[in-house]
Amino acid sequence: MQELRVGILGFGVVGRGVADLLLTRTALLLQRTGVALRLVRIATRTPERDRGLELGSVEVTRDLQRVVAADDIDVVIELIGGLEPAKSLVLEALTNGKHVITANKALIAVHGAELTARAAAVGRELLFEAAVAGAIPVIKVLREGLAANQIDQIYGILNGTCNYILTAMREKGAAFADVLKEAQAKGFAEADPSFDIDGIDAAHKLAILAAIGFGSFPRFDQIHVEGIRHISDVDIAWATEMGYRIKLLGIAKRDAEGLELRVQPTLVPEAGMVASVEGVFNAVFIRGDAAGTTMYYGRGAGERPTASAVMADLVDIARNGQAAVVQRVASFSTLPSYLSSQPVREAAEWRGEYYLRLAVADQPGVLAEVTAVLARQQISIDAIHQKGRSDVAAVPLIMVTHETTEGQVRAALAAMEQLEAVREPPRFIRIEPGFV
Amino acid sequence: MQELRVGILGFGVVGRGVADLLLTRTALLLQRTGVALRLVRIATRTPERDRGLELGSVEVTRDLQRVVAADDIDVVIELIGGLEPAKSLVLEALTNGKHVITANKALIAVHGAELTARAAAVGRELLFEAAVAGAIPVIKVLREGLAANQIDQIYGILNGTCNYILTAMREKGAAFADVLKEAQAKGFAEADPSFDIDGIDAAHKLAILAAIGFGSFPRFDQIHVEGIRHISDVDIAWATEMGYRIKLLGIAKRDAEGLELRVQPTLVPEAGMVASVEGVFNAVFIRGDAAGTTMYYGRGAGERPTASAVMADLVDIARNGQAAVVQRVASFSTLPSYLSSQPVREAAEWRGEYYLRLAVADQPGVLAEVTAVLARQQISIDAIHQKGRSDVAAVPLIMVTHETTEGQVRAALAAMEQLEAVREPPRFIRIEPGFV
Repeated sequence: MQELRVGILGFGVVGRGVADLLLTRTALLLQRTGVALRLVRIATRTPERDRGLELGSVEVTRDLQRVVAADDIDVVIELIGGLEPAKSLVLEALTNGKHVITANKALIAVHGAELTARAAAVGRELLFEAAVAGAIPVIKVLREGLAANQIDQIYGILNGTCNYILTAMREKGAAFADVLKEAQAKGFAEADPSFDIDGIDAAHKLAILAAIGFGSFPRFDQIHVEGIRHISDVDIAWATEMGYRIKLLGIAKRDAEGLELRVQPTLVPEAGMVASVEGVFNAVFIRGDAAGTTMYYGRGAGERPTASAVMADLVDIARNGQAAVVQRVASFSTLPSYLSSQPVREAAEWRGEYYLRLAVADQPGVLAEVTAVLARQQISIDAIHQKGRSDVAAVPLIMVTHETTEGQVRAALAAMEQLEAVREPPRFIRIEPGFV
Repeated sequence: MQELRVGILGFGVVGRGVADLLLTRTALLLQRTGVALRLVRIATRTPERDRGLELGSVEVTRDLQRVVAADDIDVVIELIGGLEPAKSLVLEALTNGKHVITANKALIAVHGAELTARAAAVGRELLFEAAVAGAIPVIKVLREGLAANQIDQIYGILNGTCNYILTAMREKGAAFADVLKEAQAKGFAEADPSFDIDGIDAAHKLAILAAIGFGSFPRFDQIHVEGIRHISDVDIAWATEMGYRIKLLGIAKRDAEGLELRVQPTLVPEAGMVASVEGVFNAVFIRGDAAGTTMYYGRGAGERPTASAVMADLVDIARNGQAAVVQRVASFSTLPSYLSSQPVREAAEWRGEYYLRLAVADQPGVLAEVTAVLARQQISIDAIHQKGRSDVAAVPLIMVTHETTEGQVRAALAAMEQLEAVREPPRFIRIEPGFV
């Protein structure tokens, strides 16, 4: 019987999940692949811990080389995270003739082109299903299931921490800071949450989806990234009042002129499918010219959901091995020689409707000043809401624009910020009509 | 450059969609596969029609043998539908060394075990992504993306016609017969709609999903099949009042004792994801022990969505061809030698809560008689609703049970039907709590 010998780099939450599945799903995996998948070794900084698993003959070591360079390892699973030493280890493992599986979204988003080229050059697999949307096999869907489609839109709720916080703010009417603290206590947010709540994690995932969907690998700095720190309970309440929910969306669009790539808090209609994705769940909406819009939903993080995706890659390698094949599917679907570098549109050129929030003095003439600024930027207003309260220094002034460009919106807000009656930096949130 | 020569059997709606993509997506498909996919021939009963396509050098013939037996065809796409002659043609094509792609759910549900065994024996592919849920690549997800999971539940809204009818009944407060007529006028229902509305189409798809998910190919007659003909506007209105929607669900469950396989109208909570799938859309919910519940949503039928799935199979074959491999993945995920025949639980043993609807005479003592029947079957009641109206012969009596077995419910309804005060055959609808 054919055997695949597996080594894991990193024995954190996901590493434990993968090891657990490898140790306990032997029969199931054999029945589906014809290959005996054997966990040989785990390299970790804390080799003294067994994390509650019956590790049996599995070697646990501090020596990373015992995984990436050892003769008795066929597949390396990289679960360390971050750019270095992960990148060097992946390159070394490939060079040593190992297949590599990684859950490392930052690594693929930033160095994916280089790493996948190396994998192709040495005739080994570099797979990364777990890097995007956890349990949801959206990489496979995009690379294979929708392979005959010209993709023009990918929307995703790609970060469960942000979606949990936004959901909890709405359900409890609570402030961002309080919900963040609660999320940290529950383990849904990191002690240093900036990677998640500033949108960087979602942007890493969006870069990978865009590369596969559009056949164009974006530089990471071409993605416009905003997080959710400035979303207030006032925004959530007004969004609800107007029939919207606020979601941190990763959005990738393509048209004849180029790409639009951004991670932004976004107002979406509450009756649509996007709005119905709540709590820690992720979802990806993909629009193709043949399939139309399809949607993929599930847990985006966690020990077992992420391990499910890592193991799907391992099953792929096992099945390839049975059929003695590598690189059956190009890493980003499009063959490397056809990958192009498509222009990415500047944020100022994006078109859409926008929600604007100002804190203004409750005094005569303010509305005239604010609307004069909008008029100068040729922005027309669809709706305006103000509730005066004489007992406070500033009251919220909420406006919704008709379609305009983000450049005009930013210019208008900058001008408004100079007005004496405007008491806090004005904020805007983009409105996406949603498409299913 | 490697070339794959394609022949299509059937030039109906889906055949047109596949031909269109093959003729117009040549460059895209080449960039993603490295293979030139060339449509060589279409066999159809109406070879004189070009269906608005620029067919160029494509031969259109009445002679099916020119596709399944011709030397210049590598891949046969079967889009005739039905069991015969489709089955014979697929077998013949495989025997002649062609790969076969089919969108024929009846064929795979009824003869899938035999046909896939033949494909394996001759070393050719038999792929059927388009047989389930149209554009949604759920076969690939289940065979590959979730391959490391022990699957224990698959729920699906698998028939767009039924979902369209149930959605329209609710939105318009209209009766089944009226909505069906409208759906037929719009092309969402066939002139003879029984395949759809009696649940047979959904059951074919469920059989295929269950085979892949559970590694056990059910006999088609082991699936309990109910349609939506008996759903009345009274049911829809009461479901709404109680916070539910009615969906025709295909449900496949597995536990230690065996499988539960059924297509049934079902009450699902309106706040859940299942309820949010409306109109002609399909969705499949899959629960695995590692991934948890993931959900897949999109258009379940139509020219281009179905063609998208057929073409995904063709891309798979092209990529396999580049890598010179066949049968990389077993047809039903589990290798044939490990496929088992798991026992299927009888309908009478299913446990759940049930909605009951009676039409009763508006007279004293009726409630006592009905509840006495329930008491004899040891069914306890969670809720009961009756609104008396003195101007009609019979009024609806709506009850919701606590958990019981379907056998007890059926026995109770049979007994109630004998009561003088019960004026129409009593009906029940199962309640599923939904799981996301």
